[in-house]
Amino acid sequence: MDAIDKYNINLLGVDEQQRRLEKVKEQMRAAGISHALVRNNVNIYYLTGRVFRGFIYVSTDIEAPYYFVREPNHLVSDHHAPDSHIRKPEEIPALLAAKGLKNDSPIGLELDTITYSEARRLAACFGKEPSANISPCLRGARAVKTAAEIEKLRCDGKKQSLVYERIPHCFREGMTDVEFQIEIERASRLEGCLGQFRVAGSDMELFMGNVLTGHNADTPSPYDFAMGGEGLDASLPVGACGEIIRENMPVMVDVNGNYNGYMTDMTRMYIQGEPSENALQVLALSSDICRTLAGMMRPGAKACDLYNKASQMAADAGMADFFMGHRSHAGFVGHGVGIEVNELPVIAPRSRDILAAGNVIALEPKFVVPGLGAIGIENTYVVAAEGEPEVLTKASEQFIRLD
Amino acid sequence: MDAIDKYNINLLGVDEQQRRLEKVKEQMRAAGISHALVRNNVNIYYLTGRVFRGFIYVSTDIEAPYYFVREPNHLVSDHHAPDSHIRKPEEIPALLAAKGLKNDSPIGLELDTITYSEARRLAACFGKEPSANISPCLRGARAVKTAAEIEKLRCDGKKQSLVYERIPHCFREGMTDVEFQIEIERASRLEGCLGQFRVAGSDMELFMGNVLTGHNADTPSPYDFAMGGEGLDASLPVGACGEIIRENMPVMVDVNGNYNGYMTDMTRMYIQGEPSENALQVLALSSDICRTLAGMMRPGAKACDLYNKASQMAADAGMADFFMGHRSHAGFVGHGVGIEVNELPVIAPRSRDILAAGNVIALEPKFVVPGLGAIGIENTYVVAAEGEPEVLTKASEQFIRLD
Repeated sequence: MDAIDKYNINLLGVDEQQRRLEKVKEQMRAAGISHALVRNNVNIYYLTGRVFRGFIYVSTDIEAPYYFVREPNHLVSDHHAPDSHIRKPEEIPALLAAKGLKNDSPIGLELDTITYSEARRLAACFGKEPSANISPCLRGARAVKTAAEIEKLRCDGKKQSLVYERIPHCFREGMTDVEFQIEIERASRLEGCLGQFRVAGSDMELFMGNVLTGHNADTPSPYDFAMGGEGLDASLPVGACGEIIRENMPVMVDVNGNYNGYMTDMTRMYIQGEPSENALQVLALSSDICRTLAGMMRPGAKACDLYNKASQMAADAGMADFFMGHRSHAGFVGHGVGIEVNELPVIAPRSRDILAAGNVIALEPKFVVPGLGAIGIENTYVVAAEGEPEVLTKASEQFIRLD
Repeated sequence: MDAIDKYNINLLGVDEQQRRLEKVKEQMRAAGISHALVRNNVNIYYLTGRVFRGFIYVSTDIEAPYYFVREPNHLVSDHHAPDSHIRKPEEIPALLAAKGLKNDSPIGLELDTITYSEARRLAACFGKEPSANISPCLRGARAVKTAAEIEKLRCDGKKQSLVYERIPHCFREGMTDVEFQIEIERASRLEGCLGQFRVAGSDMELFMGNVLTGHNADTPSPYDFAMGGEGLDASLPVGACGEIIRENMPVMVDVNGNYNGYMTDMTRMYIQGEPSENALQVLALSSDICRTLAGMMRPGAKACDLYNKASQMAADAGMADFFMGHRSHAGFVGHGVGIEVNELPVIAPRSRDILAAGNVIALEPKFVVPGLGAIGIENTYVVAAEGEPEVLTKASEQFIRLD
């Protein structure tokens, strides 16, 4: 355990780190990968509780990880451990050999997230081609949260729920969707929101959240989020577009819940004036789907069954054409959340994911109805070992009045 | 030119798109790459003026590009061009063949930015291994901005300068650095800032900007930015940390300049009360380095010569230990900016970049001095064909009073 004790890198505590490492190693063993270099920020954060630039060496043969830190180098140099401060990854194999660690099998790399050029370079350090992909191992491990992770998410949920309570105070008559969003961003940031929105996939971009009203909700976006919107500029075509918030027109608010490195995901509906009967029915359907799916969230449940149930409920209500979009439809009704906003499991028709206790899942059965805009709620749930899931995002699921 | 005229994808205008494409093709010819698939958001935006999910096929043998759009599919389906709507990249080779395009040489891919898994998948569509890297071609083409791009950057500079003029109104006595930053974020957003901060490199993260005061400036960060800071959380260890802004203590403000898909980069110094003599001298040195380096910004100038001049000026003033950081030093004094905040050229000691007319470069000679914090300014310049570069970021380079 020397690496854990010698340096001060691990902020998780020894037991919590071992719990996470053991989950990763279990996945590595199942994939036939005996050692790996982890370098993505989200995975370094997962395994140490902090972000540093460098690598974590994980082996199924040894208990503790080894750290190879590029920046900030005081993390290791302050502790007189020059062997763990590196300038480039080419130094790693000799440092491992000096520790008596020898392993000729292919080195596991995050092949689904690191670039082609970097994967080749890292594998070449070990005299190999990249062949062992540990991305699925890390994704799989991270899908089942530890108690400490759930506690962080619980804190997020409380803060995000507080911000959502304050949202009516962010509104002034005659505002545009963008102006409203800016005041919500400020309220979130003042509550401690870090702003950074971590999402897997280089082509996923969004700034702080999505506030949608009116016909803008029906503008398809290139991004694989549940909802679209034209955005303010063709360089970032998603979300609020400068549309004035009109009386009796629903407003959907789905903003960033990252308060501590973990994220809850939450959506609520706001309105100045009165919702129409139709809008009330659609929102009740979304809330009903959430409740029904939450009731199905037990260990062993199939993710695809949850999706199909939601889709069936939408169809039964005559709302199939508007479910998860209208001109364009998102292909899922829920997703894991944690360090990133799109973790496992995925609640989608062809998902093979099976729910497990400790999954943290955002459900967002949403509708886009011409004339009404985007309508629906989103909650984040923790799948329990027994019984109902725990809801982390608490606020009225009705239309919340802006006046 | 059918692809350009048949669909409505290209927002740049035919001439502007051809100008950009020609620069990319020139780089491809020099690299021996005859065709390529472009899929990164920043490069798709560069070649069309919009972000979509999909691919742009560029060939040195044909004038126009071909678009293969995944989302939003109405971009192509509204124009009855089903051959350009794809569900997966495996469809592309047959679609190209149907257009009579046949090319057996390795397909160029953005190997420095797409993931290993995706590079393998895309090359396999063409029955190959990934071997032709077009990332340097795109980076090289994008380093020299067109007149239209410079005009967008000029607009950014104006808006960003306006926001910087309003920054004193964001301040209230007793604020923390984070609270001050939140009000600056709001002012920027209300001026039209898109917020999204595009940066090359998956391990570079920052939310909206960096406001530094006091000893926090001397906390090294894992990220390869000019300045560090502890940040609010170990999951995002950079920038403001909640430190109260004290009287007579300099505050450095370096916030997001993305108003239209392009970004200027600008830093100014603020203070409540009076700067010390020492602080005034350090700021004058930063301003002086900017002016001197701007004078050297001519086509044909070596980027490393600019860096060395800055470094020499810092050393001559007895400030070598504090130049570009103190406990940790950034390895550059300037960088290209455009769609991303870290484009070419890089103004660094071992840079081989040669300046060209149309380069847009942010210079940020900054110092971290114990007891004073971070001090320095940053301006964005356009390298002119003849004469002095144009400055895009205009505001007083003195300490700006907060009271």
